[in-house]
Amino acid sequence: MRDFLPEDVRRRHYVIGVIADVYEGYGFEPLETPAVENIETLLGKYGEEGDKLLFKILRRGEEGKLGEADLALRYDLTVPLARVVAECRAKLPKFFKRYQVQPVWRADRPQKGRFREFYQCDVDAIGSRSMVVETEMLAAATDVLARLGFTDFVIRLNHRRALSGVLDASGVATGQHEAVLIALDKLDKIGPDGVAGELAERGVAKSGAFALLDACGALDESPANDVILARLARHLHAHAAGVAALDELRQILSLCEATSAAGRVRLDPSLARGLSYYTGAIMEITVPDLAGSLAGGGRYDNLIGMFLGADVPACGISLGLERILVVMSERDMFPPAVAKTAADIMLTVWSGERLSDTLALAALLRKGSLRVDVYPEADKIGKQFKYASSRGVPFVAVVGDDELARGDVAIKNLATGEQTAVPRDQVVAFLRAAKN
Amino acid sequence: MRDFLPEDVRRRHYVIGVIADVYEGYGFEPLETPAVENIETLLGKYGEEGDKLLFKILRRGEEGKLGEADLALRYDLTVPLARVVAECRAKLPKFFKRYQVQPVWRADRPQKGRFREFYQCDVDAIGSRSMVVETEMLAAATDVLARLGFTDFVIRLNHRRALSGVLDASGVATGQHEAVLIALDKLDKIGPDGVAGELAERGVAKSGAFALLDACGALDESPANDVILARLARHLHAHAAGVAALDELRQILSLCEATSAAGRVRLDPSLARGLSYYTGAIMEITVPDLAGSLAGGGRYDNLIGMFLGADVPACGISLGLERILVVMSERDMFPPAVAKTAADIMLTVWSGERLSDTLALAALLRKGSLRVDVYPEADKIGKQFKYASSRGVPFVAVVGDDELARGDVAIKNLATGEQTAVPRDQVVAFLRAAKN
Repeated sequence: MRDFLPEDVRRRHYVIGVIADVYEGYGFEPLETPAVENIETLLGKYGEEGDKLLFKILRRGEEGKLGEADLALRYDLTVPLARVVAECRAKLPKFFKRYQVQPVWRADRPQKGRFREFYQCDVDAIGSRSMVVETEMLAAATDVLARLGFTDFVIRLNHRRALSGVLDASGVATGQHEAVLIALDKLDKIGPDGVAGELAERGVAKSGAFALLDACGALDESPANDVILARLARHLHAHAAGVAALDELRQILSLCEATSAAGRVRLDPSLARGLSYYTGAIMEITVPDLAGSLAGGGRYDNLIGMFLGADVPACGISLGLERILVVMSERDMFPPAVAKTAADIMLTVWSGERLSDTLALAALLRKGSLRVDVYPEADKIGKQFKYASSRGVPFVAVVGDDELARGDVAIKNLATGEQTAVPRDQVVAFLRAAKN
Repeated sequence: MRDFLPEDVRRRHYVIGVIADVYEGYGFEPLETPAVENIETLLGKYGEEGDKLLFKILRRGEEGKLGEADLALRYDLTVPLARVVAECRAKLPKFFKRYQVQPVWRADRPQKGRFREFYQCDVDAIGSRSMVVETEMLAAATDVLARLGFTDFVIRLNHRRALSGVLDASGVATGQHEAVLIALDKLDKIGPDGVAGELAERGVAKSGAFALLDACGALDESPANDVILARLARHLHAHAAGVAALDELRQILSLCEATSAAGRVRLDPSLARGLSYYTGAIMEITVPDLAGSLAGGGRYDNLIGMFLGADVPACGISLGLERILVVMSERDMFPPAVAKTAADIMLTVWSGERLSDTLALAALLRKGSLRVDVYPEADKIGKQFKYASSRGVPFVAVVGDDELARGDVAIKNLATGEQTAVPRDQVVAFLRAAKN
């Protein structure tokens, strides 16, 4: 787990701020849940592997048996959302649209780029089956990435029921679907021949496999969306659920054209997404230089019902905050203002007797919304300059006896070495002008 | 532990935003540490009672013995700061000034206003013994509270070494100091007679006790700071550490007059503060209608040394975020803008065929920095109005066939019922004007 020093915190808050601002623009509202949930709420929700990765908290007090755990740290933001929706249904609007940016914890073996504490940034819309929901998810994610400076991302779109329809139509038995999805998920890494090989190993008929890969557009170079739709339609013509899924994909593609996601969405029938709870459209956002995705999500119409005991449609997307930060760092995408120094100016301290004057000047500048550091003690002035310089503070102020007598302040630009006498009441304006 | 629904999150983020902004203005920088620390880092730092209140995390994997805990949830923000300073000394500036706003966890019995997960908001300055540090702490806390709208708060100031000096000078044995501090801490609740009674019970000589209460100004009504200083000086004239402490108090009082804390600081020789690690000035900020304080802190020159193995002076103040929120709610102090609704406008959906037009309008308005909700599906228009109204959204837009033909949008003010036809390219300006 990591400590975030000031520069890290500033970068993280910048990205989180953009995310929050964009989602507020789409009518999403913030939600926060506790770090700790009852262990029963979490157990069994993430598969056997997930149960092992929970951080479990020892029961307190004497009544608890030795070693028994009754609480666990939050593992994702989806199960807490489902719990909140189930508990607070009456207080929440019919279409509850929430964003949530909080840490989650997984007892994974730590490795490069993977941490035991990391932030998730989830956006979900509860209550509607309309494809407007999927479209707004994709448009908002596009806005976030565009605002952060990404230009080369692609939105990959598929549909769980289209996928299973193609498998059915290709003669793949229902019991083999999952194995095929797992093989398919590796298409990026092992190529079409590799996938075909794995499918053969798993006893999936070669013809079925190739029909599938063909539909995937895996056998030629990124066919256009309408080519893929036509191929899928050919495979799915007799499969009612598959045909309905294609219609949803067509709707999303068409609606996206009216939004910022226009031209970004690429149908990818090989997109499978690991989680088993998806029931409709699935999506992933990728950039060329990152294995894995910047964001991923989809429709899951049954998960919340597990908690509520009633059917509640839902669709969500999770932005990979940690990955976004990694790519932005590697590409040097942070605006200069994010790496702000500790202060706009540092006031030096000439002598102990002048401390009150220095503090009064600091108060004046802070009223003008400047960020002001005060060197805390009288010291050699050169040492104070050096300290400000080492911290990247652009200006230092000296208030000596002469300056006090004249009512001005000597302001030194540490980059140029230039020193200017500025009347006290004009220091704010002077520094403002210098900043811009 | 609590879920924070959107209104709660907005109020919390508003207060945290003001705090962060003020502290940035004083040259403090943000720090974040993990929720989880090694259990050895935390054990023994908070007394026996504190050890019991730690949430302990079960060791993972088979190698761990049943029931063994190797990690624990963060209990406060001071010990993690000390750990970071010890680990990252070389990366941090000589005078490290950090603020940190993060949750902490205590396995307390939950009760009204006390939670097992709550936020702390700590501000600490490491590396200087100058009273400029204390002064800036008090000025910044004053700015935070003033910016939040508090006008009736008082800063109570005392000094640990003045306190122990008075006790020494009053003939209280060192071994009895802590008992006296505990009795003194109840002055607010049980009055001077009550304190004298408790002191007598604990075998503290009556003359000594009364000398102390006299010095405290507990026997008359809030004496002026210079009266208290004079009384303390009388008691402490032969006590070198006590005299030095008085000098520090005088410096803080004098320096504060040059800052926003001017006129706010009241010496209170009865102020004791619970924690044993304070070594110098101690402070607390109170308002009349709250038992307990809005903020508290002091100088602790030895604590960080425990981790670093070298002497590091430090002074900090902790703002009681949860209490500030409680008082602000009770007094209805949140600016109206904080209770913002989910959106500035909701676009209704006339028919499935018009969805693209609606989404294109949404994109246009969002580009103009408006917060726009889109009703996700075609439905009776009255039902959509009602939904927007129930959510407090002030405007709805209708884009019917007539409006599309004319290139305008019908905008209805839900408070007045007034409906206006606005050309598409003027909707942003229209809503901006209506907002102000």
